[in-house]
Amino acid sequence: MFGVTILGNNSALPAYDRHPTAQVITLNDRLFLFDCGEGTQMQMNRYKIRRSRIQHIFISHLHGDHYFGLVGLLTTMSMSDRKVPLHIYAPKDLELIIKLQVMASDSRLPFDLFFHPIQEAGLLVDDPNFSVSCFKVYHRIDAWGFILKEKRKPRKIDAEKVKEYPFIPLSFYERLQNGEDYIAPDGTVVKNEAVTYANVPSRSYAYCADTIFEPSIAEQIKGVTMVYHEATYLKDLEERAASRHHCTTVQAATIARLACAQKLLIGHFSSQYDNDKLYLFEEEAREVFPNVQLALEGVTYEV
Amino acid sequence: MFGVTILGNNSALPAYDRHPTAQVITLNDRLFLFDCGEGTQMQMNRYKIRRSRIQHIFISHLHGDHYFGLVGLLTTMSMSDRKVPLHIYAPKDLELIIKLQVMASDSRLPFDLFFHPIQEAGLLVDDPNFSVSCFKVYHRIDAWGFILKEKRKPRKIDAEKVKEYPFIPLSFYERLQNGEDYIAPDGTVVKNEAVTYANVPSRSYAYCADTIFEPSIAEQIKGVTMVYHEATYLKDLEERAASRHHCTTVQAATIARLACAQKLLIGHFSSQYDNDKLYLFEEEAREVFPNVQLALEGVTYEV
Repeated sequence: MFGVTILGNNSALPAYDRHPTAQVITLNDRLFLFDCGEGTQMQMNRYKIRRSRIQHIFISHLHGDHYFGLVGLLTTMSMSDRKVPLHIYAPKDLELIIKLQVMASDSRLPFDLFFHPIQEAGLLVDDPNFSVSCFKVYHRIDAWGFILKEKRKPRKIDAEKVKEYPFIPLSFYERLQNGEDYIAPDGTVVKNEAVTYANVPSRSYAYCADTIFEPSIAEQIKGVTMVYHEATYLKDLEERAASRHHCTTVQAATIARLACAQKLLIGHFSSQYDNDKLYLFEEEAREVFPNVQLALEGVTYEV
Repeated sequence: MFGVTILGNNSALPAYDRHPTAQVITLNDRLFLFDCGEGTQMQMNRYKIRRSRIQHIFISHLHGDHYFGLVGLLTTMSMSDRKVPLHIYAPKDLELIIKLQVMASDSRLPFDLFFHPIQEAGLLVDDPNFSVSCFKVYHRIDAWGFILKEKRKPRKIDAEKVKEYPFIPLSFYERLQNGEDYIAPDGTVVKNEAVTYANVPSRSYAYCADTIFEPSIAEQIKGVTMVYHEATYLKDLEERAASRHHCTTVQAATIARLACAQKLLIGHFSSQYDNDKLYLFEEEAREVFPNVQLALEGVTYEV
């Protein structure tokens, strides 16, 4: 399972029961939170997201509609007696903002909170099963995009075929998954292809929250499976989009096309469009990049 | 019009689509906000509260479920190009918390924000038409209750009767409302009762958010028209209430009775009770104080 659940798809002014930005990414049994606008914890209740499974939170930039729900979420985790450590990756000023609010309530978190200030593009988390890296995007203030990549072994073990070679020790299976042949102590060789088959390729998800149109972003996310890119306005408002450091539908779709992504998800819709107008976002983006979907709240999109 | 609209009636952990504490008090054409939990601005959208009319916000204490919606509300006011000044009355640490978040977004508010740190019991606002004062309540951290009083003139002018005395100048009407007789330049006396009648008495609303049971609070709010008092637990959990610096139904009702209030509103229900259990709160409180109502979200209660 590798999916993206949208908790908020609106731009800064909440409207039409749409919420500020937050996305939960599920990768097998792990959850990741990308941005955490006001009300995220209530949206998690509504859509049955298990807070306790989140170990990594990534905040793209310090406009309130991307993080004002964070301290409330931490407080609720705290009252739920969480013990599991939590890692937050965000622009550095957020650390003091969190600390002051925890201190003002005269409380302390019952779990370890590790704050990782984002200072340059590169790898943020490197786990045996996934990695997360960040890259610069271009908004009014310091802002970052993120790429979450799963790590799959290149080969999968064929359970039926491997039974024919009971002398291969279990401890060697990981090396089989990595493509090695097995050579027994007596010199017998079992070719890798005899007991494995090719795994599906690793998938990746790129998250580009608030940014002005900047084609170099496509280079940063080249070849991702799915990209989320903000599309605050319809294409006729390209000037307004630029003046506010945001993008249009066509610009978001252009990034996905330049990046040779397989799928595009668009969101961060301006409050000037009611829900009946959102289909236009999809129509316009589709002209440039056919495999596009609207980021709708409560919906999970498979990467 | 003097009414209280409930935007959030739940204790700290959001549950059952109940929200953290926030109340809007309407006094004629003015709105006052008492506490501002996460999601308050969305609740204002839902219940058609006009943000622009709020000029005074009062924060009882710095637990997040009473103020985590504040900076989001300020940001939205800012994006709505508000020009009207805003006054916030709160424990002093909130000022830096607000400033840091405004600074982190590299923006400034387009309206004057006056922060008034609450340091001692007494008068906070004294307007010709109303006053707001604060008094100490007893929670785990520094916490305050508020009393909003309307100021009515003691007499109202009888429009029919005053027509019979056309020589009374309009400029004297305010003095008539204050109970004075009119003495004309030729010595003619118009007795006050001839042209006025007694106004209804001024009403008042006391707000006691998170507090342990403390009978001296009743002295502070003696004779208020309506009191809101937190009732986090049913009466069987009196020990738990005390250990968490909260109250039960019976304790809230006892404060209303000791204060000789006319009406009681109870809220801040613990997340351990689902909506089907709330009627028990009303039943239990009614045994001690008959004129009690549950603070239900979206409902306006007349003071």
